[in-house]
Amino acid sequence: MFKTTVTCMDARINPFEQLGFSEGDAHIIRNAGGMAKDAIRSLVISQRLLGTRNIAVYHHTGCGMVTFRGPELKQLVKWARPDSTACAEQVDAIDFLEFTDLEQSVKDDVNFLKESPLILEETKITGWIHHLETGEVFALCSLSKRPDLSLADYSSNIAHKTQNRSIPNNISTT
Amino acid sequence: MFKTTVTCMDARINPFEQLGFSEGDAHIIRNAGGMAKDAIRSLVISQRLLGTRNIAVYHHTGCGMVTFRGPELKQLVKWARPDSTACAEQVDAIDFLEFTDLEQSVKDDVNFLKESPLILEETKITGWIHHLETGEVFALCSLSKRPDLSLADYSSNIAHKTQNRSIPNNISTT
Repeated sequence: MFKTTVTCMDARINPFEQLGFSEGDAHIIRNAGGMAKDAIRSLVISQRLLGTRNIAVYHHTGCGMVTFRGPELKQLVKWARPDSTACAEQVDAIDFLEFTDLEQSVKDDVNFLKESPLILEETKITGWIHHLETGEVFALCSLSKRPDLSLADYSSNIAHKTQNRSIPNNISTT
Repeated sequence: MFKTTVTCMDARINPFEQLGFSEGDAHIIRNAGGMAKDAIRSLVISQRLLGTRNIAVYHHTGCGMVTFRGPELKQLVKWARPDSTACAEQVDAIDFLEFTDLEQSVKDDVNFLKESPLILEETKITGWIHHLETGEVFALCSLSKRPDLSLADYSSNIAHKTQNRSIPNNISTT
């Protein structure tokens, strides 16, 4: 099933080798952390113009997103250009989307997509943890924006090394 | 040389097979079109926390970004949720970054990065056209934020099918 994937820019990640995709299978969005909020422009284009109705979010172990805090990073950027008002304004406008808890970050992203008015009602959303050390990919959570939709098809399209845990529906992060 | 790559989410693109990268070579940022503006959060993280100083932007032939206009896409999104103020506000806040001229879009992105106060002064920036039909990758333009820096190392790390055209320095899009 053609879908949209959101995963990290990390140099060690090869979605085709590690996540079980082949060329033509999926739109592959990558950014620092694999953050859904930073993928929203691409997700809207993927859904509205290219017809995808499935979004799979992968975050991974050993991700650099747990190693910093946004305010300190913003200060680092400002220090490099102390005389630039534009630099300060532009970096202050960025939400760097760092996180501290890997599993929670996936659940938060899945819930963000479920709640977003920009994501279509018929979308099926899944969240995954990619263990870079072992190559295993675990299904963490799945949500449908419409509870009548089946999520059974998420057992497909998983890499060879993938191990499935049971996938609870309607995960809440609150 | 470890670098950061920005390319499209298109399902046909496999950077490892087509752009000559191996796992570990580069941060790979992907979004609709491979747009630098939409990659700025990830680029700052890549540069400030992970030490990259080279950014390569790839746009490709047959890209969906030339097939729509932002205002019409925003209207499409609003039509799906006519009663949602949040939907209208959120979609109006998005710059979908569509373009009409492929080569110009690469030059614009390279210049955006050169001018951005968030990108480090010592950054070397290159722009590429990826011809999906033939597998060829053409060097289109290169810029350094500091003119004293050599750009000679951009002849490396190019896929087998790549053909280099001469790379003009200091491309201007105006």
